[in-house]
Amino acid sequence: MSKKNKKPQKLKARLPRGFVDRSADDIRAANAMMAKISEVYERYGFDPIETPMFEYTDCLGKFLPDSDRPNEGVFSLTDDDDQWMSLRYDLTAPLARHVAENYNDITLPFRSYRAGYVFRNEKPGPGRFRQFMQFDADTVGAPGVQADAEMCMMMADVMEALGIKRGDYVIRVNNRKVLDGVMEAIGLGGDENAEKRMNVLRAIDKLDRLGVEGVRELLGEGRTDDSGDRTDGVGLSSEEISTVEAAIGTFSAETSIGNKAGDDGIEELNTIQKLIVESGYAEDRIKIDPSCVRGLEYYTGPVFEAELTFPVTNEKGQEVVFGSVGGGGRYDGLVSRFMGQPVPATGFSIGVSRLMTALKNLGKLETGKSLAPLLVTVMDGDAMGQYQFYVQALRNAGIRAEMYQGNWKKFPNQLRYADKRDCPIAIIQGSDERDAGKIQLKDMIEGKRQAAAIESNEEYRAARPGQFEINEADLVAEVQKLLAEQTGAQ
Amino acid sequence: MSKKNKKPQKLKARLPRGFVDRSADDIRAANAMMAKISEVYERYGFDPIETPMFEYTDCLGKFLPDSDRPNEGVFSLTDDDDQWMSLRYDLTAPLARHVAENYNDITLPFRSYRAGYVFRNEKPGPGRFRQFMQFDADTVGAPGVQADAEMCMMMADVMEALGIKRGDYVIRVNNRKVLDGVMEAIGLGGDENAEKRMNVLRAIDKLDRLGVEGVRELLGEGRTDDSGDRTDGVGLSSEEISTVEAAIGTFSAETSIGNKAGDDGIEELNTIQKLIVESGYAEDRIKIDPSCVRGLEYYTGPVFEAELTFPVTNEKGQEVVFGSVGGGGRYDGLVSRFMGQPVPATGFSIGVSRLMTALKNLGKLETGKSLAPLLVTVMDGDAMGQYQFYVQALRNAGIRAEMYQGNWKKFPNQLRYADKRDCPIAIIQGSDERDAGKIQLKDMIEGKRQAAAIESNEEYRAARPGQFEINEADLVAEVQKLLAEQTGAQ
Repeated sequence: MSKKNKKPQKLKARLPRGFVDRSADDIRAANAMMAKISEVYERYGFDPIETPMFEYTDCLGKFLPDSDRPNEGVFSLTDDDDQWMSLRYDLTAPLARHVAENYNDITLPFRSYRAGYVFRNEKPGPGRFRQFMQFDADTVGAPGVQADAEMCMMMADVMEALGIKRGDYVIRVNNRKVLDGVMEAIGLGGDENAEKRMNVLRAIDKLDRLGVEGVRELLGEGRTDDSGDRTDGVGLSSEEISTVEAAIGTFSAETSIGNKAGDDGIEELNTIQKLIVESGYAEDRIKIDPSCVRGLEYYTGPVFEAELTFPVTNEKGQEVVFGSVGGGGRYDGLVSRFMGQPVPATGFSIGVSRLMTALKNLGKLETGKSLAPLLVTVMDGDAMGQYQFYVQALRNAGIRAEMYQGNWKKFPNQLRYADKRDCPIAIIQGSDERDAGKIQLKDMIEGKRQAAAIESNEEYRAARPGQFEINEADLVAEVQKLLAEQTGAQ
Repeated sequence: MSKKNKKPQKLKARLPRGFVDRSADDIRAANAMMAKISEVYERYGFDPIETPMFEYTDCLGKFLPDSDRPNEGVFSLTDDDDQWMSLRYDLTAPLARHVAENYNDITLPFRSYRAGYVFRNEKPGPGRFRQFMQFDADTVGAPGVQADAEMCMMMADVMEALGIKRGDYVIRVNNRKVLDGVMEAIGLGGDENAEKRMNVLRAIDKLDRLGVEGVRELLGEGRTDDSGDRTDGVGLSSEEISTVEAAIGTFSAETSIGNKAGDDGIEELNTIQKLIVESGYAEDRIKIDPSCVRGLEYYTGPVFEAELTFPVTNEKGQEVVFGSVGGGGRYDGLVSRFMGQPVPATGFSIGVSRLMTALKNLGKLETGKSLAPLLVTVMDGDAMGQYQFYVQALRNAGIRAEMYQGNWKKFPNQLRYADKRDCPIAIIQGSDERDAGKIQLKDMIEGKRQAAAIESNEEYRAARPGQFEINEADLVAEVQKLLAEQTGAQ
């Protein structure tokens, strides 16, 4: 009985950690930005395709950055036939599955793009979400580095299509083969050193954040950060560290790594350089940069990164460059692991919300505001059909409009609602006006301006600021006229 | 050792059951359709918002149709703090959570719309997917049935904006209160009969599919379908079944159910009827229909359904009406279960892929085809930068173009690719032409027409059908001219 008498605890409305709701402004701005990106992808001859959120876990593989345990960082569950399924953590692994599954129906080279949410089952933090949007483009079945060069040009064109001016961005290009050659040179070749090689790459990838000294520590004995957290080092000798450092310095077309992998990589970079320059993309847009590595394991050749170079202030108050908004590379093994044959591929991914933050910083994000609707107020419940008729007439003329849907009996609430919602016009009709075939239009913008000069409630009621009478039959025309005046006046 | 020598089994590329990949045509057509729907929602004063795919399981509640066990039909997993999370199964429960969580920052009435994927962990079947898109609109904080009437008008306007003509659709409206009154009248009132009432509603909801006799069986002793599957009946007497049948017949404004719940429901329907007619929406667009029930448990008042009435042939070869493409209703309890106060709400949901199928049937689906890109062929690897330069020049002029990214050494493969991809023009330049500052344009459409009349390979090579030479400097202008001619000729 005591259990029954207990009042049930009220259910608490709360979002799961690391997930967010998106506002109208955010959605409109993202849509406007993504339309511009699509336009570039389309111009380059790419077509949209889309895969679902779920994949079988074995099809996704274990390619997440910074995760050594299988499926760490992935949301997974078993299906009712006991097969493991996971929510995709990027858009590349599902594309590889799609191409392999439909290989006989697809015309290669296959050029496609897609935007979609991806999921990471990680500890959420500031600016670190467990669901976020990526916007990718890929060419599958393209063996030559001309396809990688094209990816870099497309990223540069995307930046400029979004209004990011030359000098505020650079596409950095490097080649995993060069780095593989360097690692071979210091005795880290072979399958047995694959994990060590990834740790070297991940250490280099932190150059921006940790500086040269921090990377040296990670390559050597390990590093303890400000908060006392310890990261194990790769254990290279200081001589080996110097070799790595030299290799990630300035690029020179004449460099030799001293082994085939490395020198093949240099030659590919030279080809990319030549293609880019001949296509009209100078070093101020796309630049070979040996320190660009990318954290993902599946890259096999050229890698590239779109970096925004303008300064921002970080949470510690330091001035830093904004940094990466996307990147990619060649992943020749990802489709072929499903196939009996090699299927070379290259592509890149843009982080949508990070790019939006960058554009906001530059003042280049279209705010995406939409003109708020007109409000038809309700003065008289019996005339609701009449009010609704006015609303429909305005809508049919293409004007955003709504009838007040709250409790209409408190009229001041209706104008307060119109005010909060930034309605440009309120439409008012009491029974006297209805009988006379009249309607009151209230110019909410002019009304606010006039009201600012009014001192008493009595004066306000007498003046009815911004309000004027029109004939019912002229409603649509008068509203259009007033909206045009308001737009002109702003 | 034997284990080591075994060849590893090749990974099989396959989609999880009940999930699909989407093609370019499908995506383009869906986007065009959804843009038209958004346009209507926006005109009605609704703004976009979006919630994430995951919610805490307790926030979603147990409102799935046709599922009695808790969380049946939902994809769920535990978070690392042991809280259960689920992928949303509709867009309404997450909206209720969003409003409750942000109640103090939201201006009521809150008018919002959203498109998004929802997930059902059900047995997949033909046309039955485990991930599909819904496109919803809702008004929260609207106590009066004028908000429900507006939802019906908006659904009607959406149908017409998509080109579905009057007579091919009807918005059916009913009221749960009427049905609740009927059930009270046959002794099924009270909390203890909640499940029985839902079973009555679900039986009525199958009227279209099973006919009067089938529903009678479900309301009575139960039903065995053609395949031998048995569904238990509600166990009503034949007299009670007759009462239910009478109540779901033709609507009359003067009907009395004989109890308050039922008669309140009738009065609300009368108000909706009046509002709709006065707003200019006659019975050929929105119609009170007492057999409309909707399968979801959370509705508390008016319910509505958009039905397409044109005939299609079903899998059994029978002619049937196309049926529902969306619906909704009033759900006054869904937000308030988080709150200490009532928060009335109403809304509807459109099934995106079902509506696309309907439009395809009507020949009203924009095919969404995009003109395929031009192909710049590669004749000479050393001139790749030059080819890429041409491509960029075309793209900069807004023309979809690409350079061939496969193995360029087999030239016939390049033209085969252009052909398969429906490229309108191929651009060809050998070293002789390059030295002379010339380019060959190949009109792929005219070429195909001419080639059809050519009988031998020799003749083909000599004629080079559809191919002509231009000056390198005129590339963009000549391409624009040819594209215009092709468009005009089609």
